[in-house]
Amino acid sequence: MSETLSVAQQALDTANEAKFIANNLWMLMATVLVFIMHLGFATLESGFVRRKNVVNILFKNIMIVSIGLLSYYTIGFGLMYPGVEGGFLEFAGFGLNNPEGTLGLIEYADGNYTYYTDFIFQAMFAATCCTIVSGAVAERAKLLPFLLFCVLFVSLAYPISGYWKWGQGWLDARGFYDFAGSTLVHSVGGWGALAGALLVGPRLGKYTDKGLKPIPGHNMPLATVGVFLLWFGWFGFNGGSVLSGDPGMVSLVFITTSMAAAAGCIGAFIISKLVYRSYDLGMALNGILGGLVGITASADGVSIPSALIIGFIAGGIIPLSIGFFDRIKIDDPVGATSVHLVCGIWGTIAVAIFGNYDEGVGTLGVQLLGIAVVGVFTFTFAFIIFFILKKTIGIRVDKKEEIKGLDIGEHQATAYS
Amino acid sequence: MSETLSVAQQALDTANEAKFIANNLWMLMATVLVFIMHLGFATLESGFVRRKNVVNILFKNIMIVSIGLLSYYTIGFGLMYPGVEGGFLEFAGFGLNNPEGTLGLIEYADGNYTYYTDFIFQAMFAATCCTIVSGAVAERAKLLPFLLFCVLFVSLAYPISGYWKWGQGWLDARGFYDFAGSTLVHSVGGWGALAGALLVGPRLGKYTDKGLKPIPGHNMPLATVGVFLLWFGWFGFNGGSVLSGDPGMVSLVFITTSMAAAAGCIGAFIISKLVYRSYDLGMALNGILGGLVGITASADGVSIPSALIIGFIAGGIIPLSIGFFDRIKIDDPVGATSVHLVCGIWGTIAVAIFGNYDEGVGTLGVQLLGIAVVGVFTFTFAFIIFFILKKTIGIRVDKKEEIKGLDIGEHQATAYS
Amino acid sequence: MSETLSVAQQALDTANEAKFIANNLWMLMATVLVFIMHLGFATLESGFVRRKNVVNILFKNIMIVSIGLLSYYTIGFGLMYPGVEGGFLEFAGFGLNNPEGTLGLIEYADGNYTYYTDFIFQAMFAATCCTIVSGAVAERAKLLPFLLFCVLFVSLAYPISGYWKWGQGWLDARGFYDFAGSTLVHSVGGWGALAGALLVGPRLGKYTDKGLKPIPGHNMPLATVGVFLLWFGWFGFNGGSVLSGDPGMVSLVFITTSMAAAAGCIGAFIISKLVYRSYDLGMALNGILGGLVGITASADGVSIPSALIIGFIAGGIIPLSIGFFDRIKIDDPVGATSVHLVCGIWGTIAVAIFGNYDEGVGTLGVQLLGIAVVGVFTFTFAFIIFFILKKTIGIRVDKKEEIKGLDIGEHQATAYS
Repeated sequence: MSETLSVAQQALDTANEAKFIANNLWMLMATVLVFIMHLGFATLESGFVRRKNVVNILFKNIMIVSIGLLSYYTIGFGLMYPGVEGGFLEFAGFGLNNPEGTLGLIEYADGNYTYYTDFIFQAMFAATCCTIVSGAVAERAKLLPFLLFCVLFVSLAYPISGYWKWGQGWLDARGFYDFAGSTLVHSVGGWGALAGALLVGPRLGKYTDKGLKPIPGHNMPLATVGVFLLWFGWFGFNGGSVLSGDPGMVSLVFITTSMAAAAGCIGAFIISKLVYRSYDLGMALNGILGGLVGITASADGVSIPSALIIGFIAGGIIPLSIGFFDRIKIDDPVGATSVHLVCGIWGTIAVAIFGNYDEGVGTLGVQLLGIAVVGVFTFTFAFIIFFILKKTIGIRVDKKEEIKGLDIGEHQATAYS
Repeated sequence: MSETLSVAQQALDTANEAKFIANNLWMLMATVLVFIMHLGFATLESGFVRRKNVVNILFKNIMIVSIGLLSYYTIGFGLMYPGVEGGFLEFAGFGLNNPEGTLGLIEYADGNYTYYTDFIFQAMFAATCCTIVSGAVAERAKLLPFLLFCVLFVSLAYPISGYWKWGQGWLDARGFYDFAGSTLVHSVGGWGALAGALLVGPRLGKYTDKGLKPIPGHNMPLATVGVFLLWFGWFGFNGGSVLSGDPGMVSLVFITTSMAAAAGCIGAFIISKLVYRSYDLGMALNGILGGLVGITASADGVSIPSALIIGFIAGGIIPLSIGFFDRIKIDDPVGATSVHLVCGIWGTIAVAIFGNYDEGVGTLGVQLLGIAVVGVFTFTFAFIIFFILKKTIGIRVDKKEEIKGLDIGEHQATAYS
Repeated sequence: MSETLSVAQQALDTANEAKFIANNLWMLMATVLVFIMHLGFATLESGFVRRKNVVNILFKNIMIVSIGLLSYYTIGFGLMYPGVEGGFLEFAGFGLNNPEGTLGLIEYADGNYTYYTDFIFQAMFAATCCTIVSGAVAERAKLLPFLLFCVLFVSLAYPISGYWKWGQGWLDARGFYDFAGSTLVHSVGGWGALAGALLVGPRLGKYTDKGLKPIPGHNMPLATVGVFLLWFGWFGFNGGSVLSGDPGMVSLVFITTSMAAAAGCIGAFIISKLVYRSYDLGMALNGILGGLVGITASADGVSIPSALIIGFIAGGIIPLSIGFFDRIKIDDPVGATSVHLVCGIWGTIAVAIFGNYDEGVGTLGVQLLGIAVVGVFTFTFAFIIFFILKKTIGIRVDKKEEIKGLDIGEHQATAYS
């Protein structure tokens, strides 16, 4: 009898261990997928800028992921999840003396993943919000002030608003819902992008007396590689946000995410054909991204047809939004504001329209409240930082350098030779 | 006692759950890997075409994956697996009203993966067959008719022939074997490519009175990126076709797949050196793909040395086949017909020569039968569609546009600036 | 009662099976990630060379992975792990007759993965050491002699020194520690690179009477893609070296690896700004790689702050080391010697400074011993092979071909048109 109980107990322990291994591995694979989104952003942004500014945007992108990881490790993570393991600033301290502690942490998060897994997954997320900004201020922003902005944005702005919802803060208590970050990641990045684009001003020659002069990207295969890699990474971004390998949930998220991306492509294709009379590759690429941003808030709680509608509308928004920002002369070389801010807002509202969540969760009222407070906070934060930098060390290269290109000006190099 | 039984029962439930999570995660990771093959095709094809047609081929590739997912969701999946969950056209209906149903679907497929996982994995597969066609008709096919062809091909041709085997149809009953789709995916795409290339005709200036004029691709790094990404994705394409995370099977498939790819590279290297007296990068790249296509039908049931032979022969076929199609003046800018059709046929025959399967499964007779009927059906289907399109809206851009390039003609854009 | 025992036993079996599936899947995913590092090397190296030598370096890279897999299958694996399944030269023989044997091998490695999984993971590792060499001799080494070198290096040099530690040989018995190969993979490749660069000599025009003439790479986006893909793959390289999906260990390795890469970027950024007064993208990219190589020996046994220090120093070494090799006129177009040899040595020493391992493991003495003997053996081996090749068939293209470019000379092709 006691022998049977011992076999049963051993079986239960092994079963729990196996489940823990499988769930944790999914979170780690999701981390790897989110990581490669940084390459997606790097290639997308460098494809969309001119040849003379390519080294600069690549340099920014490798610095952002590095700075992002370090800033989030040092400050951001503790600030965003203060209820975890001692809270604010504790993670860095913890890591300092106790590497072996890992093994003792396996019971974290209902046994789904380790504390270390949680950190590295969250850290990969965190760094993305600055990458969004870098695209909007490309081709004229000075390198060092921008990197300084990134440190502050990842250390403070992203984790503070993230805490409100994902750290079980006040927005969470009110029933605000944002599954994987239409607002908390994409709009946060988008508001930063808007503040940056406003304060740094449009590129020379974009808006002239004779009207808008389009400045085409220098390398469309590179931009296309970027969008495919972002879609690829989004399986981890949304799929990992399930926070376990739950088969029903993760597979649902995979379908809603893919369908929204596909529908976003079709939406942008149709609207840009209707409005601009052309099969515009850049629009279709941004349509895919718009669909992905749009579904991010509700990928775990909508039907497939709803995902198609959400994605289609998000994609259709893209050409209109890009046209709108050009009309009000806010210059955003890669369309980051349209993709991440506008579609992020749309996706957050879509939760209230299409989402199947608990009573009182994701109502239109609280979704609008969340959009508003996160928007006001992030935009103000970014605006103040950029404004102070502008008035002190400056945030824009001088006219001569901009014409010559930032690659020569900031790096004494060229991307191609 | 009953306490012991309850522990044992709980252990068994948890163990089954853990196994389900792990198996399902593998199918989802395989889905992600198959997804990135679309980027592989996009970069391979855009690398192999001329600068003036790059935007067009990229545009086609992002549209194909989007259209493919939507078509397969709406019609294809229900048609291919009619025995599943209510059959033909039911999936779309199912998804419509019942997102929560996910959780109730966990017992699907012997508890190895969810119904949703099955769909998204299959949908990623489905879209690849059109991508194969797009390469063969590149640089002269009109955009809209081609996209229309894709809708019909993914909605009808691919799932109908797929049903014959994978949907437990009549070819399956006869013992036809095609593990991951040498015939059902690659040859299907290859027959479509052949029909398209025949009806759209060769590119201007390729076959002149003075003989063949080679038209080199515009960007070999891009093409190389494509082949590496396709190999990378093939771990999911073949590995996921195990339909579970079975350690012995998936690891065997990884080795046979890799070894065939490596041997395909060497085969193409040697034969193209012997025949064309040159170390031709394009041939070696297509040799890798040939090896991968060749092993796809039998990756789960051949020894490693057999995989080497299958891959080596497939790779060696490539330079000869590409030469052959050029001699009969069928112009295929990326070699898709040689890679996917010819090596797909070879791989399907190889099942009968090298495969270790049950009695009566994969005999030479039934393999040839499968190749023939799938070939006749798919080629006829594709030919009729292309023919109707040719006689109505036309499938080829006009001469002036072809000379100027489709990027300007169809998109008013250039890939580089 | 016996019914209860039977449920308990079934639960235990299922639990063990689930654990086995999950652990094995991690090793296979790690294999896929290590595979894509070959694309990382291909794009990095082709980005760092001149336009006229791009086809050649791409050709080398696809041949290396193919030759590497075949050589390691035929000879290397059996030589490196002689204690496994019959030893030297047995694997090829085993694979020959016994594909079904797979299923009988599931108890291999404590039930964590199959024998086949072990082979394919190790084989992907093995091929990387030649890729490291190819970068250092780029733009002037002849194709065929180099490929011959690769066959010998992967078949003999890599597995022999690998056996000393990972095959439970004498270095392992002495307490030498090298978690994932700072010495056994990266330095081995680095010593080969040094021998090759010495014997093949600097590129024409690099070191002139008027001093060093920098030869910038032709495509910085391509090089950046390479570094991101290498970082991406390193999650599998280091994470897979845990040899199971152990949640605590793998997640720790993910953090130490990422943090060292990020700190390496910052280290190279700062030092190259101080020394060369410029924000050098190439240096920052190699700084990331330096950080990754540096942490590879101890990723499983250092604290996060230690990982930051190891990575920062590795990254800081890069600009100094690249400057040093240029001063002593050893020409290495991609910086492979600095990244893989110098940072590999640093990482192996760092085990003794920062590592938390068992008593007597990884002491400074034994680490230096390991560095020395592996270095002497590999360098001598590579030097002799390259020397014999130089004196017989020659290892360098002639002056005219070098000036014209190896793409035309060896392949009658150009990378772009």
